[in-house]
Amino acid sequence: MNDTFLQACRGEKTDYTPVWFMRQAGRYLPEYQAVRGKVSFLELCKNPELCTEVSIQPVDILDVDAAIMFSDILIPMEAMNLRLEFHEGRGPVFPDPIRDRQGVDDLLVPDPDEAMPFVMETIRLLRRELKVPLIGFSGAPFTLATYLIEGGSSKVFLETKRMMYQAPELYHALLAKITECTSLYLQAQARAGAQALQIFDSWVGILAPDDYRRFALPYVQSIISDLRKVTDIPVIYFANNGATLIELTKTAGADVLGLDWRIDIKDAVARVGDHAVQGNLDPVALFLPQDQLEARIKRILDNAAGARGHIFNLGHGILPQTPPEQARIAVEAVHRFSGR
Amino acid sequence: MNDTFLQACRGEKTDYTPVWFMRQAGRYLPEYQAVRGKVSFLELCKNPELCTEVSIQPVDILDVDAAIMFSDILIPMEAMNLRLEFHEGRGPVFPDPIRDRQGVDDLLVPDPDEAMPFVMETIRLLRRELKVPLIGFSGAPFTLATYLIEGGSSKVFLETKRMMYQAPELYHALLAKITECTSLYLQAQARAGAQALQIFDSWVGILAPDDYRRFALPYVQSIISDLRKVTDIPVIYFANNGATLIELTKTAGADVLGLDWRIDIKDAVARVGDHAVQGNLDPVALFLPQDQLEARIKRILDNAAGARGHIFNLGHGILPQTPPEQARIAVEAVHRFSGR
Repeated sequence: MNDTFLQACRGEKTDYTPVWFMRQAGRYLPEYQAVRGKVSFLELCKNPELCTEVSIQPVDILDVDAAIMFSDILIPMEAMNLRLEFHEGRGPVFPDPIRDRQGVDDLLVPDPDEAMPFVMETIRLLRRELKVPLIGFSGAPFTLATYLIEGGSSKVFLETKRMMYQAPELYHALLAKITECTSLYLQAQARAGAQALQIFDSWVGILAPDDYRRFALPYVQSIISDLRKVTDIPVIYFANNGATLIELTKTAGADVLGLDWRIDIKDAVARVGDHAVQGNLDPVALFLPQDQLEARIKRILDNAAGARGHIFNLGHGILPQTPPEQARIAVEAVHRFSGR
Repeated sequence: MNDTFLQACRGEKTDYTPVWFMRQAGRYLPEYQAVRGKVSFLELCKNPELCTEVSIQPVDILDVDAAIMFSDILIPMEAMNLRLEFHEGRGPVFPDPIRDRQGVDDLLVPDPDEAMPFVMETIRLLRRELKVPLIGFSGAPFTLATYLIEGGSSKVFLETKRMMYQAPELYHALLAKITECTSLYLQAQARAGAQALQIFDSWVGILAPDDYRRFALPYVQSIISDLRKVTDIPVIYFANNGATLIELTKTAGADVLGLDWRIDIKDAVARVGDHAVQGNLDPVALFLPQDQLEARIKRILDNAAGARGHIFNLGHGILPQTPPEQARIAVEAVHRFSGR
């Protein structure tokens, strides 16, 4: 069992720098495409055998030091009693966005083991197969709420902020419900065997720091605090595009802070002090010629040297257009430069 | 003549804090919609009388302290010999994106007075009418290049970064040509009578600091350095979503640095030292109830107190859905709180 990743999460000394890639089980891999060609995206998410297969693919192909279960952050939102659709090339759609009290009242807080047994089964299957640690995950409440309020992806997030500003009680009622669901969901993942949990706050970078403090951060704190009561597995919090929030994210309670590529990791390490960090190669850097790709990897490793722990990763999900061979080269370089 | 705005740009003491809004001449105003209903967007951009009319509207309606000429950052790109189309709801499209040497070679560097006489005429007309200073503008070379390379707007900017990384000579040749065009264009605006110039780097926030330093910043520096040889009017540089770039943007050579809403202005003022700053209210804050909107405005004014100069603005363009009355309330509050 290779548990370098878990050691790094806990801030323990490691023999080398562990590496995995966000969305490593994904469209850039022909092996994933072959599985995905047989089923719809939602069918794939709900099929434990296929989820297991695609979660393991990058471990075998890239030699990464951790696996992440294949799923989608919106799966528990569907389980809250919402219609969820995925349209090719358009992303997720909630045809009935939540804009009023009735919408919030109609949301269920499901028992995750009953409502999403396929997720827990995927985790159990993966634990039997894997020789590296398994990461479970969820969206952060603010990020999840944006999808529910906007009805899908957004650029300006006008409806979300409008609810925050004009109907704060409604907003907080919605967030409280999403938080309860997410909290139970992550606890169930831990019980099923997840060895670390990552919370994705993909859209939080659209908030001014003061709004983040009031409208997003407390819900993440609440989830992590609940988790601490029942499990001591590491928690990773990834506040995407969150350079101006980084001092605040320290208070979320996570063991590891994810970093996108916009911030110099040296600067981040200086600011987040005693936390382990994860990141932060620009996903597009995987398109660089090998010598330059390796130079960037070296630079990140060097600049992260002062961190309490460092897990190498991309600063965002791997792009579908990425040549798998380039991803493999990157993993090999991280290992070689860091002394494996 | 109210030149409070120009005084603030130059870091001089002002009687009160001047305010204007990015995209203040725009779709949120019924008066603009009335004009726009008669012509296409590109026709409007090329009609000096109509541009003058819509540029003046917000000065009269909102009582702002500066006007910005109505135009689009892509107008000079069309003048470089590119086909440009605006599709309703989809934004700008260049049907023939630039991806190779031939594409770069085919670009012209036009004489702005000959190729865009309507812009210069708009400036001359506006100067006759306005009682507040007139701001001219351009896109920054990197931001302009993304449109040319991607063929329009983008989310991931894969083609742009791919060119940077895989064909840096081609990328730099393209940027050099855009820079020359932009430099001449801004100089012509100054000659025609623009009293300040803003350079919009709308997409630069997708770059890692090290890439920004190599692939974007030098071109902005070059433009501003050229401008300094022929005019002493203030230059505002707005690097959108640029919190991690802020120390680098100080070296661009601008008098004023624009700030989006993601950064606390107090933090920004501490970091940009002796520059005047412009910003930084979240455009969606205009949807707040009046008392809370005013509290936010007060907070920004208080937190900017240590700046060498402060021009109140939004952190991004005003949204089409904004009630004009709310924008008027915000301007009035800025003036009242700052002692006009």
